[in-house]
Amino acid sequence: MSSERLIYLPLGGAGEVGMNAYVYGYGKPGKERLILVDLGVTFPDMDGSPGVDLILPDISWLEARKGDLEAVFVTHAHEDHVGAVAHYYGQLGAPIHARAFTANIARRKMEELGHPPTAVRTASAWPETVEAGPFKVGFVPISHSIPESSGLVIDTPDGRIVHTGDFKIDLTPGVGEPFDRDLWAAIGAGGVKVLACDSTNVFSHHEGRSESSVAQPITDLVAESRGMFVATTFASNVARVKTLAEAGKRAGRSVCLMGRAMRRMIEAAVETGVLTDFPATVTPEEAANIPRESLMLIVTGSQGERRAASAQLAAGKYNGITMKEGDTFLFSSKTIPGNERGVIRIINQFSEMGVDVIEGDDRYHVSGHANRPDIDAMHKLLRPQMVIPMHGEHRHLREHVKLAEANRIAGILAVNGMMIDLSGNAPKVVEHVETGRTYLDGSVKYGALDGVVRDRIRMALNGHVMVNVILDEADAPLGEPWVEIMGLVETGRSRAPLVEVLEGVLAEFLERAGDKILRDDGKLEEGLRRVARQSAQNEIGKRPEVTVVISRLTD
Amino acid sequence: MSSERLIYLPLGGAGEVGMNAYVYGYGKPGKERLILVDLGVTFPDMDGSPGVDLILPDISWLEARKGDLEAVFVTHAHEDHVGAVAHYYGQLGAPIHARAFTANIARRKMEELGHPPTAVRTASAWPETVEAGPFKVGFVPISHSIPESSGLVIDTPDGRIVHTGDFKIDLTPGVGEPFDRDLWAAIGAGGVKVLACDSTNVFSHHEGRSESSVAQPITDLVAESRGMFVATTFASNVARVKTLAEAGKRAGRSVCLMGRAMRRMIEAAVETGVLTDFPATVTPEEAANIPRESLMLIVTGSQGERRAASAQLAAGKYNGITMKEGDTFLFSSKTIPGNERGVIRIINQFSEMGVDVIEGDDRYHVSGHANRPDIDAMHKLLRPQMVIPMHGEHRHLREHVKLAEANRIAGILAVNGMMIDLSGNAPKVVEHVETGRTYLDGSVKYGALDGVVRDRIRMALNGHVMVNVILDEADAPLGEPWVEIMGLVETGRSRAPLVEVLEGVLAEFLERAGDKILRDDGKLEEGLRRVARQSAQNEIGKRPEVTVVISRLTD
Repeated sequence: MSSERLIYLPLGGAGEVGMNAYVYGYGKPGKERLILVDLGVTFPDMDGSPGVDLILPDISWLEARKGDLEAVFVTHAHEDHVGAVAHYYGQLGAPIHARAFTANIARRKMEELGHPPTAVRTASAWPETVEAGPFKVGFVPISHSIPESSGLVIDTPDGRIVHTGDFKIDLTPGVGEPFDRDLWAAIGAGGVKVLACDSTNVFSHHEGRSESSVAQPITDLVAESRGMFVATTFASNVARVKTLAEAGKRAGRSVCLMGRAMRRMIEAAVETGVLTDFPATVTPEEAANIPRESLMLIVTGSQGERRAASAQLAAGKYNGITMKEGDTFLFSSKTIPGNERGVIRIINQFSEMGVDVIEGDDRYHVSGHANRPDIDAMHKLLRPQMVIPMHGEHRHLREHVKLAEANRIAGILAVNGMMIDLSGNAPKVVEHVETGRTYLDGSVKYGALDGVVRDRIRMALNGHVMVNVILDEADAPLGEPWVEIMGLVETGRSRAPLVEVLEGVLAEFLERAGDKILRDDGKLEEGLRRVARQSAQNEIGKRPEVTVVISRLTD
Repeated sequence: MSSERLIYLPLGGAGEVGMNAYVYGYGKPGKERLILVDLGVTFPDMDGSPGVDLILPDISWLEARKGDLEAVFVTHAHEDHVGAVAHYYGQLGAPIHARAFTANIARRKMEELGHPPTAVRTASAWPETVEAGPFKVGFVPISHSIPESSGLVIDTPDGRIVHTGDFKIDLTPGVGEPFDRDLWAAIGAGGVKVLACDSTNVFSHHEGRSESSVAQPITDLVAESRGMFVATTFASNVARVKTLAEAGKRAGRSVCLMGRAMRRMIEAAVETGVLTDFPATVTPEEAANIPRESLMLIVTGSQGERRAASAQLAAGKYNGITMKEGDTFLFSSKTIPGNERGVIRIINQFSEMGVDVIEGDDRYHVSGHANRPDIDAMHKLLRPQMVIPMHGEHRHLREHVKLAEANRIAGILAVNGMMIDLSGNAPKVVEHVETGRTYLDGSVKYGALDGVVRDRIRMALNGHVMVNVILDEADAPLGEPWVEIMGLVETGRSRAPLVEVLEGVLAEFLERAGDKILRDDGKLEEGLRRVARQSAQNEIGKRPEVTVVISRLTD
């Protein structure tokens, strides 16, 4: 029996949708040589992470083992797979391997943060492979909703792992390589030990539809529309952007791309040869002078993002263009749960302008992820010894395990932080590693549980009272306490200003407080806070956050 | 020509889903006698109204005209129709009319706030009517998802208005009166001037399904389940609660209702005779001793509300009951847009416990609102001169106007604050009234635009820095400035504590500041704020909210 072991450790993406980061390792326990598959981000929201710019996986474990890290492999260029690569390059320093389009996007990110773009290496597609310590990794083209997505074939001394990345089974993807059943069957022919497999759409019971199925409906829709036609989709869905542009061209419209992300993605696709016959476009300046019935805009902001092109068009004007009665706005996209409010706001703003909005219509959008029958087909195509569901919330992983078991394949439910020993035939949990979320906020990173965001949420829910007290050299109050409020109503039950009511009760408290309290910052602060909160409760029915500042004059 | 006019003025509910409040008036311009139909609330969220308890319509216009207000008529007991009745009784003072079940709920609300429950008067169903100044108002039973919903027939000197309230066309609603086509046709027979009509589901193109259609699927599901069966639905959907309870009983399970709102609704329905044959239930204490396979819970919290029964069960334990592997949890409900995150959190928590969750399955839920074909049927049944779409966002109202026009009926798009003169045959906008949202927060009310919530959101997004400076009698700084932070990271770029970095630059600023600045609170505050924000930007890449407190010692 070998003392080496093969391990799997998700640091992100297993038990959530977003910030994918999967570690594989091989070697003696605790000294395994490691590779990391994907290093993505997830997005903050007002409910849980107000003021945060970006959420990264907590990779402390990997940082501590950085000497063992051979390389990072990125399956595709979606933010939840590539978004943290540059943010963590300083900590990890390992080379980053990706196919040309993904590498192009990753290099832009590296440059933005002042890291060497040369650390990102362009990988050729399977059957070429990249050696990384005990691993040999091949990028196998697989269909998804962004160019050059890859499933990884990871050959290890203990057998073959197939890590699908995000995928769907699409034989006519529009842009990029169709799903190649024969190729995947051949990859599975020699035996697959582990299939780590996308779980996103495991609850969708119908067969997935091809990207190409939306072309005709979109073409018809654009052809039938009269005023300006504006469509939004995920900027990275290059095939969709092309379909939309071609529909515009066919209807005799000039096509204009709006929004930085949209132009950047198309630029990267053209630079890397992924996109060769994209229709000619006009600039926003030119678009402003084209009659509206001859114009088609393709814009960013399908999720209702406040600063994106669609939200700005809905709010009035963008790049000199104003929409109006008789125009059409198409969401060629799906609203991701949690983004409904922003999307609905835009739809209503357009409604007020008289713009016809088409949203949530399946004819004009297909998912980029394998539905249940396609996940099932992947199981059967590769016939692995075990399936590890990934890229999903707990409910998705659990359902995917059930599906594997229905296929008589061992299913492993591993969430972030669970280190699984995949050696031999009986996988087992060998360690629980601390994982979590790291917030990027302005220019600093900190842990989700550090309390910073908790305090923000408390201020937002409860308002903030600031109490200032000055004590003289003899620990006697100098003047009255001073109160400021933020996020609280100015007058409450007594109709007197809240600030004055608080100052009054705090002054009373100080008068009655003995030397023992006045001398002790801790006790004094506690007393002032308690009195302020109780008084606020009486006045406005609410207990605010209270910050007390005690200034002591010294000789 | 008469100098009297008939007016319609929505103060809430037209251009949004929630806080319904529709004014009708008749009389000389500016002196119309008024009635108010519904007075509801809407619910706050972290995105737009953190810390707020409830959102009420701004009824300042009506308050100023309270002498003209004859009565308030409440169509049904959903919170978005009855929720603000007690909160505004103090301001309006008008009698409140509703049918027995709705009145029962309204009286509970009045009592909670110390108002006389006798102000709520129980109305009999049509053909009985209530006189209110120039209006004669009848409560016509109409099917919806709560007992005793009513459409109002409002007879005026200028013709008949039908105000549907929320409705669907349901011939087998389970509890309460089926939709009575003949009755509605008779009401329309004499001519209807205005149909003010529910717009919620105008985008749903398929015919609506009856409440009774979920009974068999739910019964089958409960019968097939093995462990504990728990279902959640809207507490006010008494028919659904009954269907669930009967399914439990039929499967030989003891049924237990959990959650205050659930028990209160059933109690009101029994008290008012709406519910006569509800299966026997057990108390939560009894439930805790019943084997899980013989138990069915019906619980509150279908929208993922944090403190409701479903969230507490998902978090671990509620009323002594813990769910586990093999149990089933059914959402017999629809997730309202904006609540997705809370619902998904619960589903994943149950998934971690091994509980099977059924959510978003149409077999186990039907909407309480008329789909487009049913709205269309209502137009045709009543053949009004004009349709005023209500109860909907702008997009719903606009689409509903289009539907009316397709039916060759004049459609009026009136949003909150638009006063429409309905006299004669050409309705016109005669005034724009200021409307908006009033926040109930703790024990006080204030306007949504008063800045309180704006400050909370700013603190949540940007963090809060508090700067304290003490100046002596000669306007010279006494000691160093003192800084406290909340909602900000403790150390930034320089690795020194952020507080110390800020204190350092602020001390420098004070040293360099001339007498002119030191003497002027405004200038000094502005300078300190600017320096603090700039320094924070350098350290942490973020410009926080800054509160400056300047204390001046006086002789």
